[in-house]
Amino acid sequence: MPTDATHPTIHLEYPDWVDDVVDWERRYASDEEKMRLAIDVSRENVARGTGGPFGAAIFERESGRVAAVGMNSVVRANNCTLHGEMVAFMMAQQRVGSFTLRSPALPEHELFTSCEPCAMCLGAALWSGVRRVVCGAAREDASRLEFEEGPVFPESYRYLEDRGIAIEHNVLRDEARAVLELYRSTSGTIYNG
Amino acid sequence: MPTDATHPTIHLEYPDWVDDVVDWERRYASDEEKMRLAIDVSRENVARGTGGPFGAAIFERESGRVAAVGMNSVVRANNCTLHGEMVAFMMAQQRVGSFTLRSPALPEHELFTSCEPCAMCLGAALWSGVRRVVCGAAREDASRLEFEEGPVFPESYRYLEDRGIAIEHNVLRDEARAVLELYRSTSGTIYNG
Repeated sequence: MPTDATHPTIHLEYPDWVDDVVDWERRYASDEEKMRLAIDVSRENVARGTGGPFGAAIFERESGRVAAVGMNSVVRANNCTLHGEMVAFMMAQQRVGSFTLRSPALPEHELFTSCEPCAMCLGAALWSGVRRVVCGAAREDASRLEFEEGPVFPESYRYLEDRGIAIEHNVLRDEARAVLELYRSTSGTIYNG
Repeated sequence: MPTDATHPTIHLEYPDWVDDVVDWERRYASDEEKMRLAIDVSRENVARGTGGPFGAAIFERESGRVAAVGMNSVVRANNCTLHGEMVAFMMAQQRVGSFTLRSPALPEHELFTSCEPCAMCLGAALWSGVRRVVCGAAREDASRLEFEEGPVFPESYRYLEDRGIAIEHNVLRDEARAVLELYRSTSGTIYNG
């Protein structure tokens, strides 16, 4: 197969700074500790100029170990699908070698995201195999920055809940929102605007 | 940065057979020709055992040239996000070097998908920059195979239409559905079931 322009390759790695933020050995115990990691990822992504103000982290629910993190990588990767949650899903699944985190061989996983998921990420949450989605900032916090969230409705969340995914909102919302404001103040690209 | 298990890399290329199906020089003129390419991709993906029965193709609207194709790659890549449409978005954006196909420097693009998009892919269509989404098989055709489509509602489509994305349904629906049935008859993995 030729490797010309018609045959691109997609390649994604964490940015170098990830180990400055994530302690892979730590057991993150409370919801607040877990959310703070997602927010730390979002803040570092802005500070390092590697993407938009959105971070996510997936944990093994019982052990509190980090399975993966995700940082918005849309601009740096020229890829509209690489929201923070999506990167976290991809990285966690790559790590465990399965297209779902709900395999019987795996412990339960949960997603913490620094902002309520957009329509794409909420859909992906359903396919990812996470059992719980915990959100920091709210849709309207992102909308104030003119970040579109897409067709997410109250029944969208109910659809996931009906399929066994617990959803929680407003965990450390103020801290999460502060990163959105930081991004605005630094005139970051509103890439979905 | 260590390259241990905590730091996976995501890597994606087209399967080798893509050039057997796609004529990169051809100008695909009608909606039917364009949809037939998306369906051909879906069928070949089943025949070659490289994924689920879903294919997509993105075209430059006026010229009819293929910007990218996408084939469901969830199982082969251990990645729940790699539906056919998502692969097509990623490949098209990588090719043009932009996170959106709606750049002023680019011609208009349109997505043809062998089956109505799931919630994730419909959300991504909004971020992708395509101006038109044309669907083959319907949600209920996929549901009959127990492929979940997620929280997509009539107002989800309206949300996209309100933002300038034209949507069309049931183009070559029977041909597209036949590939779904082919997959069922070969006992393919229902990875989102």
